[in-house]
Amino acid sequence: MPSAPSQLAYIPFVSVENMMRLVHNFGIETVLLELTDAVEADYRRWDLFEKSPRLASHSKEGVIELMPTSDGEAFSFKYVNGHPSNTAKGFQTVAAFGLLARVDTGYPLMLTEMTLLTALRTAATSAMAARYLAPEHSRVMAMIGNGAQAEFQALAMKAVIGVEEVRLYDIDRSATEKTARNLADSGLRIVSCSSAQDAIEGAQIITTCTADKAYATILTDNMVGPGIHINAIGGDCPGKTELHKDILARAETFVEFEPQTRIEGEIQQMDASYPVTEFWKVLSGDAEGRTNARQITLFDSVGFATEDFSALRYVYSKLPGTDYFQHIDILADPDDPRDLFGMLQRAA
Amino acid sequence: MPSAPSQLAYIPFVSVENMMRLVHNFGIETVLLELTDAVEADYRRWDLFEKSPRLASHSKEGVIELMPTSDGEAFSFKYVNGHPSNTAKGFQTVAAFGLLARVDTGYPLMLTEMTLLTALRTAATSAMAARYLAPEHSRVMAMIGNGAQAEFQALAMKAVIGVEEVRLYDIDRSATEKTARNLADSGLRIVSCSSAQDAIEGAQIITTCTADKAYATILTDNMVGPGIHINAIGGDCPGKTELHKDILARAETFVEFEPQTRIEGEIQQMDASYPVTEFWKVLSGDAEGRTNARQITLFDSVGFATEDFSALRYVYSKLPGTDYFQHIDILADPDDPRDLFGMLQRAA
Repeated sequence: MPSAPSQLAYIPFVSVENMMRLVHNFGIETVLLELTDAVEADYRRWDLFEKSPRLASHSKEGVIELMPTSDGEAFSFKYVNGHPSNTAKGFQTVAAFGLLARVDTGYPLMLTEMTLLTALRTAATSAMAARYLAPEHSRVMAMIGNGAQAEFQALAMKAVIGVEEVRLYDIDRSATEKTARNLADSGLRIVSCSSAQDAIEGAQIITTCTADKAYATILTDNMVGPGIHINAIGGDCPGKTELHKDILARAETFVEFEPQTRIEGEIQQMDASYPVTEFWKVLSGDAEGRTNARQITLFDSVGFATEDFSALRYVYSKLPGTDYFQHIDILADPDDPRDLFGMLQRAA
Repeated sequence: MPSAPSQLAYIPFVSVENMMRLVHNFGIETVLLELTDAVEADYRRWDLFEKSPRLASHSKEGVIELMPTSDGEAFSFKYVNGHPSNTAKGFQTVAAFGLLARVDTGYPLMLTEMTLLTALRTAATSAMAARYLAPEHSRVMAMIGNGAQAEFQALAMKAVIGVEEVRLYDIDRSATEKTARNLADSGLRIVSCSSAQDAIEGAQIITTCTADKAYATILTDNMVGPGIHINAIGGDCPGKTELHKDILARAETFVEFEPQTRIEGEIQQMDASYPVTEFWKVLSGDAEGRTNARQITLFDSVGFATEDFSALRYVYSKLPGTDYFQHIDILADPDDPRDLFGMLQRAA
């Protein structure tokens, strides 16, 4: 009797190492550009997706989240943690993995690391929003918060928007040095700054990405002049924000999925009547993006399950003909589906 | 520069093959008995668990569910599908995998197949309930529905309750033949029956486990005499039941987590005032189990996240000193947690 698993039992697993190989092979800017298009394509068919606020398990140290969605043909979810205190322990603040499955059989199609992939899709999502919300010919971006996400943001804005200069600031100088070093050969002009005020000098786009689990004020009202696009990605859970609320009062604010952002985003500081626009409406023509050169636009991004769905499908589409995956037997697949016990028995 | 993942990047993965080796090494009846104790131990600390109805994504073919829970120290979730039409396609009706993680860092501890493990924990949960609800000295069980779960139920009731005879019935005769064949050397007396009526002859416990996604009537009221314990595990999603509601009207009904069972269990047929007892209360002394020999008890089991949590922790506890797992690098773990990009860059 065969005790080796059948082909049905195996699914491709993309390890961290293989994800790195995949990104290097296709080129990180190409991946970021294609991912931006993939995320945007799914935002254009927003109505097809099953959407719910993520399922979050909060503790005093952080949060563990499950982020599921489905377009009726494929189902995806991501497991992701957010633990600001992890850095001090030598762990990642955010680590993630994800799964793509078929809706018709419920069988998984692919399991993959998503720590790297989340960094890539977050940057791609920021770039997608900036395409429609940043002022025309944006060439300078301030990058406030120079942690794990900084380089991905910089390269996505370069590849998708044509940003040429990135002005770095972090309260931790060594974080800025790390980011500047990593981007030295990127083709971007990198300017290390000694204050947030210095960093935003001449910038058309301000990206904030700091990791404190606390109400913080990275940007105050007087720092934000007319015409700026703010790409706020660090305020992404209850009790964690980065912008002074006076900025929100002056800005046109765009969000991913309003019910989730009201709980987790910068707008948790505002009352429920504060107007926001779900970004997909800009793509569908149901709402306007930037309407004039003096407007302050804010993309209050907390990350949404459809973006992970897009990223998972993108990676899955890249696998055929490559060896960027290994097979793991995660599914019991007896010859006779009713004979699970017989399979176990014969393996003895 | 090191491009090999650090130890933190790896987690143990228990494949289907390794789960089978683990079960055979410790012995299936020992595993079922220990699992029953593990599930019961966690039911005794019910209040500590974060509980929510599972997150279900329904489609016309079936359902994909995520079942998370946490006791404040460990977090677990299970991915599981339920697709009755899968059998005809050669796929499992139910396939699952699960994860155990640390709450304090959010880092995964173990990934494992859970198709086999779900079959084991479902049987263990049934046996736990039967310990307190079945009539004393129950020796005969009717097993109606002889699919993938049947043998596990039979062996758990043998190991935990001391059942000696199992009477099999399924509308598909080949399913009964399969089950009888698999249990031929189990030490149980196996009787293959030609009707449900025949199967329940002399039984103290009736287990129903059929897989139709439809309102079905496996048991009618006249078939159930006084003193019987019904272990109903096949009615486990909206629109799927096995018992005639007149049986429910006569029975004392015990459930896992009432908000979930109202939606998914046999009691979806009854109105909201129908009284049920959450099983943990029997263990804590807040409610009585079986009170007399003529009572009909019903365990309306739909499966609950804490049972998977118990099973995952049990398997995790068995791994040290064994080779029933492989390491997979699912977590990106750069030397400097803020330097995810540097890790990617150095892997080039």
